[in-house]
Amino acid sequence: MTEVTVAQASEPFPADRAGCEALDQRDPLRDFRFRFDLPSGVIYLDGNSLGAMPAAVPAALERGARNGWAERLIRSWNELDWHNLPVRAGERLAPLMGAAPGEVLVADTTSINLYKLLFAALQMRPDRKTIVSERNNFPTDLHILQGALKTSFAGHRLVLAEDDDDGVRTLIGADTAVVCLSHVNYRSGRLRDMKAVTKAAHEAGALVIWDLCHSLGAVPVDLGVAEVDFAVGCTYKYLNGGPGSPAWLYVAARHLQQATNPLTGWQGHAAPFAFDINYAPAATIEKFRVGTPPVLSYLPLLESLQIFAEAEMTQLRAKSLQLTDFFIHRVESELAEFGFEVLTPRDHDERGSQVALGHEQAWPITQALIEAGVIGDFRAPDILRFGFTPLYVGYTDVWDATAALTTIMRSGQWREPRFSVKKLVT
Amino acid sequence: MTEVTVAQASEPFPADRAGCEALDQRDPLRDFRFRFDLPSGVIYLDGNSLGAMPAAVPAALERGARNGWAERLIRSWNELDWHNLPVRAGERLAPLMGAAPGEVLVADTTSINLYKLLFAALQMRPDRKTIVSERNNFPTDLHILQGALKTSFAGHRLVLAEDDDDGVRTLIGADTAVVCLSHVNYRSGRLRDMKAVTKAAHEAGALVIWDLCHSLGAVPVDLGVAEVDFAVGCTYKYLNGGPGSPAWLYVAARHLQQATNPLTGWQGHAAPFAFDINYAPAATIEKFRVGTPPVLSYLPLLESLQIFAEAEMTQLRAKSLQLTDFFIHRVESELAEFGFEVLTPRDHDERGSQVALGHEQAWPITQALIEAGVIGDFRAPDILRFGFTPLYVGYTDVWDATAALTTIMRSGQWREPRFSVKKLVT
Repeated sequence: MTEVTVAQASEPFPADRAGCEALDQRDPLRDFRFRFDLPSGVIYLDGNSLGAMPAAVPAALERGARNGWAERLIRSWNELDWHNLPVRAGERLAPLMGAAPGEVLVADTTSINLYKLLFAALQMRPDRKTIVSERNNFPTDLHILQGALKTSFAGHRLVLAEDDDDGVRTLIGADTAVVCLSHVNYRSGRLRDMKAVTKAAHEAGALVIWDLCHSLGAVPVDLGVAEVDFAVGCTYKYLNGGPGSPAWLYVAARHLQQATNPLTGWQGHAAPFAFDINYAPAATIEKFRVGTPPVLSYLPLLESLQIFAEAEMTQLRAKSLQLTDFFIHRVESELAEFGFEVLTPRDHDERGSQVALGHEQAWPITQALIEAGVIGDFRAPDILRFGFTPLYVGYTDVWDATAALTTIMRSGQWREPRFSVKKLVT
Repeated sequence: MTEVTVAQASEPFPADRAGCEALDQRDPLRDFRFRFDLPSGVIYLDGNSLGAMPAAVPAALERGARNGWAERLIRSWNELDWHNLPVRAGERLAPLMGAAPGEVLVADTTSINLYKLLFAALQMRPDRKTIVSERNNFPTDLHILQGALKTSFAGHRLVLAEDDDDGVRTLIGADTAVVCLSHVNYRSGRLRDMKAVTKAAHEAGALVIWDLCHSLGAVPVDLGVAEVDFAVGCTYKYLNGGPGSPAWLYVAARHLQQATNPLTGWQGHAAPFAFDINYAPAATIEKFRVGTPPVLSYLPLLESLQIFAEAEMTQLRAKSLQLTDFFIHRVESELAEFGFEVLTPRDHDERGSQVALGHEQAWPITQALIEAGVIGDFRAPDILRFGFTPLYVGYTDVWDATAALTTIMRSGQWREPRFSVKKLVT
């Protein structure tokens, strides 16, 4: 990270918009912005919820529909290798997480993949009855654990740690079967020490499942070096795969033989097109496939992964930290009087690629910002979240976003009644 | 069915191609063919594997990508109601199966939906330990049942009936918790008596789960009249939703309160955007949602369902039976000497919308037909399958397909070595 040419933390932050523009000009990642189709008049700081669209996507969908589905019809499963999309996409995703090609599969949703791997892990630790997770985990992770324990592992228990890694370590013991945590917390943006926590779990004889939804694509990840057992994540946030694009799962090669998938659908069979009525799992990562893959939803992800193949993760990480440092600096220098609390850790080793601000009026302030063209989001009850995707967000965006927030706070504009109307999703 | 203007079974079959063209001209469904983008020079008799593309699909994908994803970004989840796609698509699918709007959800894959409903059904019959299915069921159904029993219902057993409905009834008893069958068999094209089998199951105190993958969209279905408890199916065959488009599940309204989903993902929560860490299921069919829906893969299905909203199922069924009757007639009259066995029942009440021909050289014959522009498919070890989608297949297609098959058999062309090379999928 020290060799890249973006501004380092030791440099002073730009003091004006022109300084931001100059930094953007020097940004070695600058040209990647033009690989995305971003609307004019919008500063998009919600790529941690839905990544922006790679500009190549509409043409890829058109090809998939016209040349694949309409023209070749059923033959595309062979001729365009649609059948292997879960494996092919996994092979292209693997380098981003320090995985070998045969360790990653793109399929289903994060929740369903966590369910599969939870069963796999628990069956590998049959004499242990405790699952360790964290109170502030993304809810679906806790929901899936709760549901699985209720219906299929009635003798097991779930214990929840607080946010600090020490709190997690304290809960890990001789009865711990699985430790299931998020790499970056979806609310605070706090980054866990994956390697250290994994080591602590292993020393106690437990297995780990990491959820990388809020880190992969923006934070360097090396599952191999950290000796992670299992991992899951989505592809529609920093990975820009499109709304609800297929999720992924990782199984360390050393566990592939022993790990079993409870969702024994035909696509995970050793020979799905032999139409054998008795299930026999594939010997490879394909044992974690279930049903027929939603082809059209894979195509944008392949376009996005092409962009990642051309980018350097060390550069992405350096820029991400600079952007979040600068955003925090601006909030503290320009907005000090308005009662925002920076909830994201200052320590780079503990920060993902988002900044969370606590404020009791978080909802209407978020809505006023969106109307002003600055798209962040809200997490109940009192958090404003801002995601910084280094591929397409620049220093001038940080300047303009914080300037807009300053205007909204100074004018009291957020108090206008229309900003208090809650919508379904943000 | 007696009032529609297509040729009735009592009419003589056309004796020449001109007679077929005349029938096609009189076909009240004729114009629907132009709502699909079909390649020239191809007779497509594999809509029972992957339905053809509605012509409106590329524009719908373009709108979804450019106006939805790229332009509105995260706001599309609200502004374009993406969040409710599983429910909205379910509401539009419901009339095709005689369901009320709140009984159908479009989500995940058939295999995963069967897993959900199997758990729901078994938990509603806790004192019964037997699941009745059928030996020739589509493999993934049996695989899912086998896997669930192995990992979560160890004391249960699976018993398999033969193809006749009487064989199923014989196996249903006081210990039967669930009867899980396919409405139309994927190999033979045999149609089961859904109402009678459901009644027999209910009389024994059991619940039913019907798999409608190979019937819905081509065969009239009324789950309400048949008092079906649960059903699942895909949308990429007769429903033309696109490769791997999301599957659906049906839960009778009377079971919605009691039925529980083992895959307790956040989208099935009563208030997913409250981010409550404790799972509390939705009170509606949404309790069977799991993760974030793959938006782009839903858009083609909505276009296809618009076509179905304009078609009469009684007309579709009448034409389907006429086409399959005519195909069987042509095989028996033109191809009698070549050893094909018609495996599909002659009785209309027992026939879906496909014809299966048994032949020991089924593989190379299928390949030679595909090269000649007639796309059917092969099912191991010895079946040629031909699906007749009444929306876009005509009488002239039947004539030309059987003429091509006759040429291939008379010339012995199928013996050419290139036709014996097996591919991954057909």
